[in-house]
Amino acid sequence: MRFEPIGIIHSPFTTTEGMPIQPAGARDVRGTVEIDPRYRDGLADLDGFSHLILLYHFHRSEGFALKVVPFMDTAERGLFATRAPRRPNPIGLSVVALEKVADGVLHIRGVDVLDGTPLVDIKPWVPAFDQPADVRTGWLEETAGGVGKKRADERFL
Amino acid sequence: MRFEPIGIIHSPFTTTEGMPIQPAGARDVRGTVEIDPRYRDGLADLDGFSHLILLYHFHRSEGFALKVVPFMDTAERGLFATRAPRRPNPIGLSVVALEKVADGVLHIRGVDVLDGTPLVDIKPWVPAFDQPADVRTGWLEETAGGVGKKRADERFL
Repeated sequence: MRFEPIGIIHSPFTTTEGMPIQPAGARDVRGTVEIDPRYRDGLADLDGFSHLILLYHFHRSEGFALKVVPFMDTAERGLFATRAPRRPNPIGLSVVALEKVADGVLHIRGVDVLDGTPLVDIKPWVPAFDQPADVRTGWLEETAGGVGKKRADERFL
Repeated sequence: MRFEPIGIIHSPFTTTEGMPIQPAGARDVRGTVEIDPRYRDGLADLDGFSHLILLYHFHRSEGFALKVVPFMDTAERGLFATRAPRRPNPIGLSVVALEKVADGVLHIRGVDVLDGTPLVDIKPWVPAFDQPADVRTGWLEETAGGVGKKRADERFL
């Protein structure tokens, strides 16, 4: 599978040190997504949605480890039970708020990615598709409520 | 960006004709995800989570169109405001329920993908990360409640 960036995400974060680790910790952080002019016709109707799923390339991550100590924990966990960036296929996923679309640029809120991150896809966030009921969150059960206060460091570079 | 499958999704659907178009229409449909033995150590701790985000390759889609008539509508919409499979980077995303993990195989419920679909990544679904508040869903506002009854056809092949 070969994929190409369809745009670039701009954020205030130039290093992972101190960066929020999920949009929940970055609710007021604004950023933009500059869509490649070739793909801008595909942005029609997007402005009706309040939230988007961004898929992007963890372009600063190299290699992967199948066991990691995530930012949210002190114990080692299976990689696929975490959102850590060093993955066999280093694709990141963030749910962000869409404030407006103008001239091929998405203005977003809740940005938890590095400035310059290559965008792979955009999907509208739809409760009927993306919001399950009766959710359990395993090792995160006790800690996820505090994700807003957690910050990244350099451990995954 | 070059990605490789980390597993294969098995479902009862061998053609898109009549397939549910989102897990919401496939809540009782069971399937399995067979993880490549090289990556099975990364499944540790996954069984604590009730729901997963699967990222997969729309391997039967060719090319893309920036305007599409989605299954959920009769009007043409911008591609990125839809979940249609013919995308510049044909990556699909489904939120599914995890029933158990055994011998490197995930047993899942709510499968809306074709049998044999290559898996790209697994992420735990976490409300603090993936469930925004005050959601609007644009053109889907009136139709998404009925997604459970919608079925796919061959339009995106």
